Amino acid sequence: MKRFQKVKGVRDLYDQDMHDFLVIENVARNICELYNFSEIRIPEFEHTEVFARENDSSDVVNKEMYTFLDQGNRSLTLRPEWTAGIVRSVVENKLYAKPDLPLKYFYLGTNFRSENPQKGRYRIFNQFGVESIGVESPFVDAEVMALGYTFISSLGLKEFKIELNTIGDSDSRQAYNEALVAHFEPVIGELCTDCKRRLKQNPLRILDCKVDHNHPSILNAPLNSDYLNEKSKDYYKQLKTVLKNLSIPFTENPRMVRGLDYYSHTVFEYISTHKDMGAQSTILGGGHYGYLVEQFGGPEMAGIGFGLGIERLILALQAEEVDLGEADPIDAYVMVLDEEARTYAMQLSIYLKAYGFKTDMNFAERSFRSQFKTVDRLNADLAILIGNSELEKGEVTIKNTVTQDQETIKAEQMVEVAMKMLEENAEIREKAEADAEKSHECQCKNKDGKDCDKKDGEDHDCQCKDKDGHECECQNHKH
Amino acid sequence: MKRFQKVKGVRDLYDQDMHDFLVIENVARNICELYNFSEIRIPEFEHTEVFARENDSSDVVNKEMYTFLDQGNRSLTLRPEWTAGIVRSVVENKLYAKPDLPLKYFYLGTNFRSENPQKGRYRIFNQFGVESIGVESPFVDAEVMALGYTFISSLGLKEFKIELNTIGDSDSRQAYNEALVAHFEPVIGELCTDCKRRLKQNPLRILDCKVDHNHPSILNAPLNSDYLNEKSKDYYKQLKTVLKNLSIPFTENPRMVRGLDYYSHTVFEYISTHKDMGAQSTILGGGHYGYLVEQFGGPEMAGIGFGLGIERLILALQAEEVDLGEADPIDAYVMVLDEEARTYAMQLSIYLKAYGFKTDMNFAERSFRSQFKTVDRLNADLAILIGNSELEKGEVTIKNTVTQDQETIKAEQMVEVAMKMLEENAEIREKAEADAEKSHECQCKNKDGKDCDKKDGEDHDCQCKDKDGHECECQNHKH
Repeated sequence: MKRFQKVKGVRDLYDQDMHDFLVIENVARNICELYNFSEIRIPEFEHTEVFARENDSSDVVNKEMYTFLDQGNRSLTLRPEWTAGIVRSVVENKLYAKPDLPLKYFYLGTNFRSENPQKGRYRIFNQFGVESIGVESPFVDAEVMALGYTFISSLGLKEFKIELNTIGDSDSRQAYNEALVAHFEPVIGELCTDCKRRLKQNPLRILDCKVDHNHPSILNAPLNSDYLNEKSKDYYKQLKTVLKNLSIPFTENPRMVRGLDYYSHTVFEYISTHKDMGAQSTILGGGHYGYLVEQFGGPEMAGIGFGLGIERLILALQAEEVDLGEADPIDAYVMVLDEEARTYAMQLSIYLKAYGFKTDMNFAERSFRSQFKTVDRLNADLAILIGNSELEKGEVTIKNTVTQDQETIKAEQMVEVAMKMLEENAEIREKAEADAEKSHECQCKNKDGKDCDKKDGEDHDCQCKDKDGHECECQNHKH
Repeated sequence: MKRFQKVKGVRDLYDQDMHDFLVIENVARNICELYNFSEIRIPEFEHTEVFARENDSSDVVNKEMYTFLDQGNRSLTLRPEWTAGIVRSVVENKLYAKPDLPLKYFYLGTNFRSENPQKGRYRIFNQFGVESIGVESPFVDAEVMALGYTFISSLGLKEFKIELNTIGDSDSRQAYNEALVAHFEPVIGELCTDCKRRLKQNPLRILDCKVDHNHPSILNAPLNSDYLNEKSKDYYKQLKTVLKNLSIPFTENPRMVRGLDYYSHTVFEYISTHKDMGAQSTILGGGHYGYLVEQFGGPEMAGIGFGLGIERLILALQAEEVDLGEADPIDAYVMVLDEEARTYAMQLSIYLKAYGFKTDMNFAERSFRSQFKTVDRLNADLAILIGNSELEKGEVTIKNTVTQDQETIKAEQMVEVAMKMLEENAEIREKAEADAEKSHECQCKNKDGKDCDKKDGEDHDCQCKDKDGHECECQNHKH
């Protein structure tokens, strides 16, 4: 029998992995709503020229695209990134003419790059990103950066830094390009093939070379900051002031250039600083694009956006042991004890759903014991037992798996009793949680580093750690 | 300036269209949760042989796939439908070995077919679908059909019917195939090229021919039901009984064959009966597949699923004038009245988000009047006015756009006052809604078909219609 396998470098998402994605997507949607960004979806493929525009030097465009001919012999390309497609959409649909700018859109979806798969890098990977288009202002840039910061922090990630740089406007970039060409031309023979191409297309990208990044000519290359004009310096300075006033921490990295050619002014990366993240530590990257809308045939109009790799983010969350939880269990599982009662059981199961109970039922002929194991595995609060006796009398046997209470009742009482049992269980869980918090075992040290001998509730002056060595959050000890 | 356009036959989704999709996706996710189906995502492309399996006769596989070579010269195909990929995933990831069967997964995502675009048919189109794999039982089939029925009904669609048929198991199908070959062989010269291919690959599909569907040989073709063996007849009969007991209405269509080759036993379509839907009236289609898991190298294991076209569903909802609502407006819009106060305004805007207020602010230098128009367009409950005076005194001017109340308060009172104002507005809206319901103008007819002359609240015996001719849902009139 032939075995079918997925394509190398892609993933199936189901069960816990899918749950993690859904948690992240929900947080993204909620935060975008708070910031008044609304969702946009663009097609998975575009005419190739949407991505491969004249003179583009990026690896994404030059080497990593899935490009193919459709039945009409037009060259199509699977979306390697979203910004170009969104700008195409903004121009084609004349969204730039809306009265309220900036346009604020976010996206959740896949990208396609035919690079070699590595840890945290897939050929089909998922991004959350935003684009804010239509007003050129450091405040707009800051808002996009704030949204990214709120998002990552909300998920519980702590060990990350924000790196910031400016590329300047086109005049500054032109001046810097000339300086780079003058600098690299004498040594270009020593650099890789890609760098030779980049020298002509976009010398800035030589600084980002993965092959020759330790070559002295790259290490000693002229700094962008020395070629910024006044306007670009002002823009950057204002942005830094706004970020400080919004308490968004950042460090400047004057050598950062992003992997796409269309950026001007602001560029930034949010980087996990956890030791396990290695070379794949950039979680979020983005920047300002002052000329892209025009390149797509729209008006002169600036934009800024970021893209965040969800697979990468999950690696960083896992490195920090952030728990994204599990899917909620079902409320009730309907056990079928006699085949004759199966239709009756299914009627009850569907009826429960109509009242909002998450319900499943047994479909195969299986023993009581085996069905009860399913109840356990599914962690269902209620087991509903349906056999011939229940069928004949129009009854339902309902078992609360938390309290072990079991009642046989008329079918018409089922919803009421099921609700009562779920409420009981919710109370029990609440109480257990409160108790667990109270009886939390801290290993307290007093200020001399010795084990603390005070009792719960007594005043003492120590540094409370829980048994895993983390700062204790229980409220027993007064510090 | 060059104009970039999206590929023919694909769509951008944003604003109201995106909202409609999100409403539908939310309802799908909620109902799948009630039925204990969990989400799965598979890659947008697979090795071509996942979709183009031996002897497949369907148009989807033969004519409408986007197939291309990747950089390693492997043939890849963009997902034309989800079932094959999900079964590939179930086998490759050994999900079939889980203790609790059936596996129950649902999906929301795009499909790719390079057919000619028509109304409601796109080259990239969206599906909601489910698969229930691992237990062969009419009850499992009925559950999947019930889920589809609950979903479509929940959205408010009323004018649709369910058509049901059986293809039978492989023995029945073999017998029927032989009868079809015997029937069509003498006249095959009169049928289209596709039918000639189908005669060899899968004669059943000739019945579904779009070119020759009025040819006498197709109209008079033998009926499947005459070739079913006992097992297949029993299975079908049981399914019909279960559906009746679950109050799921259906009609039998003995000539229905679905567009994919892998079905056995149960097949069904949910079809809009609204007059505007024309040829594109099938919203949901699906069926049972008894042999697919095995074909993919897994154990003998049956499955059943359906796929629902979201674009098609939206057309049907629009035909019935079902309103999917609009996105919620933001809570507060921060107006910037002096440039010096912009940073302060942004701090307040971000601060409000931290308390869960959906907030936007003005980013461009614009007049008071122009900014206030934005407040109107965004339908924000609160306008927060920030100028130099507010900045200097650490104050905030907050205007409730519903009551027209305006207060200037200390910044630290902002959240409290904003919450109070939103609560006021919620109460006002609730009251207005209750009033509207009271004053609802019905056009009542009494049992003689004459205009009813009773007053609100008076007992009367009539058939109450609202002014659009729909059954009235107001509570004013006792029927």
